[in-house]
Amino acid sequence: MNESIGFVGLGNMGEPMASNLLKAGHALRVYNRTPARAASLMAQGAKLVPRLSEVADPGGIVITMLSDDQALEGAVADDNGLLQRLGPGGIHLSMSTVSPATARNLAERHRRYGVTYLAAPVFGRPQAAVARKLWICVSGPRAAKDRVQPILSALGQAVFDFGEDPGAANVVKLSGNFLIASAIEAMAEAMTFAEKNGIDRARLIDMLAQTMFACPIYQNYGKAIVQEDYKPARFRLSLGLKDIDLVLQTAAASKTPMPLASMLHDRFISAMAKGREELDWAAFALGAWEDAGLHRHPHHTEKGK
Amino acid sequence: MNESIGFVGLGNMGEPMASNLLKAGHALRVYNRTPARAASLMAQGAKLVPRLSEVADPGGIVITMLSDDQALEGAVADDNGLLQRLGPGGIHLSMSTVSPATARNLAERHRRYGVTYLAAPVFGRPQAAVARKLWICVSGPRAAKDRVQPILSALGQAVFDFGEDPGAANVVKLSGNFLIASAIEAMAEAMTFAEKNGIDRARLIDMLAQTMFACPIYQNYGKAIVQEDYKPARFRLSLGLKDIDLVLQTAAASKTPMPLASMLHDRFISAMAKGREELDWAAFALGAWEDAGLHRHPHHTEKGK
Amino acid sequence: MNESIGFVGLGNMGEPMASNLLKAGHALRVYNRTPARAASLMAQGAKLVPRLSEVADPGGIVITMLSDDQALEGAVADDNGLLQRLGPGGIHLSMSTVSPATARNLAERHRRYGVTYLAAPVFGRPQAAVARKLWICVSGPRAAKDRVQPILSALGQAVFDFGEDPGAANVVKLSGNFLIASAIEAMAEAMTFAEKNGIDRARLIDMLAQTMFACPIYQNYGKAIVQEDYKPARFRLSLGLKDIDLVLQTAAASKTPMPLASMLHDRFISAMAKGREELDWAAFALGAWEDAGLHRHPHHTEKGK
Amino acid sequence: MNESIGFVGLGNMGEPMASNLLKAGHALRVYNRTPARAASLMAQGAKLVPRLSEVADPGGIVITMLSDDQALEGAVADDNGLLQRLGPGGIHLSMSTVSPATARNLAERHRRYGVTYLAAPVFGRPQAAVARKLWICVSGPRAAKDRVQPILSALGQAVFDFGEDPGAANVVKLSGNFLIASAIEAMAEAMTFAEKNGIDRARLIDMLAQTMFACPIYQNYGKAIVQEDYKPARFRLSLGLKDIDLVLQTAAASKTPMPLASMLHDRFISAMAKGREELDWAAFALGAWEDAGLHRHPHHTEKGK
Repeated sequence: MNESIGFVGLGNMGEPMASNLLKAGHALRVYNRTPARAASLMAQGAKLVPRLSEVADPGGIVITMLSDDQALEGAVADDNGLLQRLGPGGIHLSMSTVSPATARNLAERHRRYGVTYLAAPVFGRPQAAVARKLWICVSGPRAAKDRVQPILSALGQAVFDFGEDPGAANVVKLSGNFLIASAIEAMAEAMTFAEKNGIDRARLIDMLAQTMFACPIYQNYGKAIVQEDYKPARFRLSLGLKDIDLVLQTAAASKTPMPLASMLHDRFISAMAKGREELDWAAFALGAWEDAGLHRHPHHTEKGK
Repeated sequence: MNESIGFVGLGNMGEPMASNLLKAGHALRVYNRTPARAASLMAQGAKLVPRLSEVADPGGIVITMLSDDQALEGAVADDNGLLQRLGPGGIHLSMSTVSPATARNLAERHRRYGVTYLAAPVFGRPQAAVARKLWICVSGPRAAKDRVQPILSALGQAVFDFGEDPGAANVVKLSGNFLIASAIEAMAEAMTFAEKNGIDRARLIDMLAQTMFACPIYQNYGKAIVQEDYKPARFRLSLGLKDIDLVLQTAAASKTPMPLASMLHDRFISAMAKGREELDWAAFALGAWEDAGLHRHPHHTEKGK
Repeated sequence: MNESIGFVGLGNMGEPMASNLLKAGHALRVYNRTPARAASLMAQGAKLVPRLSEVADPGGIVITMLSDDQALEGAVADDNGLLQRLGPGGIHLSMSTVSPATARNLAERHRRYGVTYLAAPVFGRPQAAVARKLWICVSGPRAAKDRVQPILSALGQAVFDFGEDPGAANVVKLSGNFLIASAIEAMAEAMTFAEKNGIDRARLIDMLAQTMFACPIYQNYGKAIVQEDYKPARFRLSLGLKDIDLVLQTAAASKTPMPLASMLHDRFISAMAKGREELDWAAFALGAWEDAGLHRHPHHTEKGK
Repeated sequence: MNESIGFVGLGNMGEPMASNLLKAGHALRVYNRTPARAASLMAQGAKLVPRLSEVADPGGIVITMLSDDQALEGAVADDNGLLQRLGPGGIHLSMSTVSPATARNLAERHRRYGVTYLAAPVFGRPQAAVARKLWICVSGPRAAKDRVQPILSALGQAVFDFGEDPGAANVVKLSGNFLIASAIEAMAEAMTFAEKNGIDRARLIDMLAQTMFACPIYQNYGKAIVQEDYKPARFRLSLGLKDIDLVLQTAAASKTPMPLASMLHDRFISAMAKGREELDWAAFALGAWEDAGLHRHPHHTEKGK
């Protein structure tokens, strides 16, 4: 029989994930700061609860999909009562991208309530969430991982287990986002270089993305950069900066110099300074063109709606 | 009927390419500065000529696969007599990675002899050359491209046409090599970051290279970096530096700042300073570990044989 | 008549500063977490108090010289009672290097107790503190600045007023430390470059520091780098990293990309990874030599005593 | 008795230097590609010669002050006849900023004609040349250095001897220019940072340039950057790029990674892309403001006259 699940955080990613859980036959209690976001899920059978703690059943499973460390820490703060209600035998399946240090601290706090913290951040954009095509990295205690297996299967196309350390899955998630941003920077410089030397940017990426770089990141982001398709954002630039800064903080704490991550940080800060926080995070690529004296499209400085 | 072809430059790449032309039924005259490299090809039916110019038949096709701009310029210098002998109707199919500026200058010089210069640099490592899996970028006059089509088909798995500008194919080739080196740097930083945070580097790349980065560059170089498999070199580090410097020179001439290419240049220079010029070019990745205070294997400073 | 002053923080800098206040005729109550550091000051007439709050007289002046934001925030936390005791009319002359944001937050908190927060970070190394040669940047309410004028004159050779914003003086202090670290990096690269090209590093800096760069930073740090004089630390490398990171945080919050500061961050992180946190902060210069394949002196990885 | 001297290159720097030689009582034959530049010197007694080689007297001294390596190499090319005429016992006092490799090659070529090549690049802007305030670095054979001593004294305020290697003085010159550009970048980032945080850029630099950085570079360039005084150029940006690229080439040849020099290269390239090649070289500082989303004055993209 399918487990009854609590779900917190119905943003671009959380909403289609919750919908897939309903489709897979799970009963769902949902909570969102802006309750209106739950309308479609309620039509599919989800129960909207008015207070955060009420998503939890004692010993049950609660999933959170929130925007950053503070939001996650807020959700499990004592005054919300979530961990108290979840209690012994409960599992908090934490799917947000947060710092490994936050994950480890939270795992420790959860243990005091008998709750197991499982880290399970995902790779994939909103359309991948809709299509159950997410890639999920998971880490934490084995028994809990076994119990959530059917849930993860309902959400993604593959699950990768990185052991017992509750911080591990987020290290991998941050590594992946760093690799994506690095690829965007590399493509942006290469396209600028090509254009300045008489090559059409679309032709360049078309060739590379069907040969040596025939993989989703170069194909999807390559196309977005070629078309300057940054609005609406699949993943907001301000959140991209947050992730790169999580990389840099985690790197600093572990004494790891990452000059390429530092360069990306500066690109993001420049994009923020130019008013692009609401565009898709790939829009930091515009910096390569501007530094080369090529002018961006005027709409790129407007803020999104 | 298959054309008779002259082939100059029997290195790691040139030798298997020449062999594939023989297999495809072309008669081949070959020349190499070190004639001993031709032994296996002669056993397959190639004719070794003692002087460079003798690879050419009037109005025929000569292929060059040389290590750098100087070697290529030397091969077509007047005192070698190659262009004179090739003469009107002849095609020089230049497959080396050289600067777009050199390609354009040579195209101009070739016209004085009635010879067509075709740029056709390739992507792929020696084993790809053996397996006829090269990707070939070509640019230059259309008629010549049509005539060499069967030859290119005998060498690679796909041909990409970048128009008439003889420099264009090399712009694409340089863009591609820049993207590869960028991916190596990104993987090196990500693996160092992961290791410092308790994640096995092989596990990290394994996950990424079968999902978002499921493409040859991340799979092949990812594996090489994980295993520190830098000897023998598929592509020597000193040649990798040459290519990055061609990128930077071409970028400077076209007023394109490329901060990531500059960072790669510094990584390569550091690797040269540490005695790694004979290792595979991916060995510049070791810099990320060393800057993080992690010690490389002692054999990495030895020179290759 | 001279004011009676409370002084908190008797480290490398604080101890000689407190001594100069005694010499200038001020009565001094001092507090330090490690009371033994107060021995010499007590011999000069200072009164050591056992609890932090007791350094304060109602409406008086308290000076703090602490290592970082947390230490400063801790000192004025409610449970210490310092602000309560200092109360209306009191001045907290805060001379530590902290973030502008912390200064502004603290100024706000101080106002609730009727206490004026004055930011007055200093430039100069311990020997400059001894010699009353510090340069002092000050910002905050005018009346308070007037009142502390004689105190600042007893501590430094010049005072620079940056207006009323309590964060302003720290912006300047961070800017200055960033410029110093930038000069160290530039000298390190230049000396490595010169050595690799046959020039003695001492000769190079000697010339430059008596001509275009005839100023304290190039003369003093130039000499230290030439002699690899990094132990004992005048200013610990881990504190230098803290300051560069305050620059980067403040820069990020104000949407200012600072690529050179990012590069310095990476140099510091690398030095930390190599075990140099207890050396003088200029020791990050060793990175330039090591990246160039030149070997550092073995003692540079030892930790200081 | 004063030597009769030949002088080649009457640009911003060469013209006032030649004038000082006349004032010091030297007879002067001058040559310039644009003869009109010699008018004022002729009025002071110089003799304008129509062909380059005629500036030389057998066994005499010829000074060159040219814009780059090619110009210098051209001047001493065989078809100009300069070295032939100068001949045994002659000295070529080469005061241009060129690469150490060029200096060493030329020294070798000069020896075949019995001519001594002395490298003597200078630090200082045109007004320093006028005021005999140049700093001169010299290297080459001792006897020749002794003979030119009175000439150097007539041109600058101090002479620094870097030994016998004809490349040495240019290594020092390049190191110095690298340090200057590094200081400009550091100031630009610090001023942008300060402005974004409410500090007036002039106040910031005023404080720093009378304390820790009380030296010509920070004072003069600090003022220029504060005022955005980039036109007319004291030293053209395109020449500044040339010098940074000489640094990078010399660094690469000696296997020295210089990440800060690479960053400067990218800043210069960006400034070139924005049409600033005729502005003063310090104008690359505008990049820091622009990357922070602050808009430059419109006139900065105009080309100079």
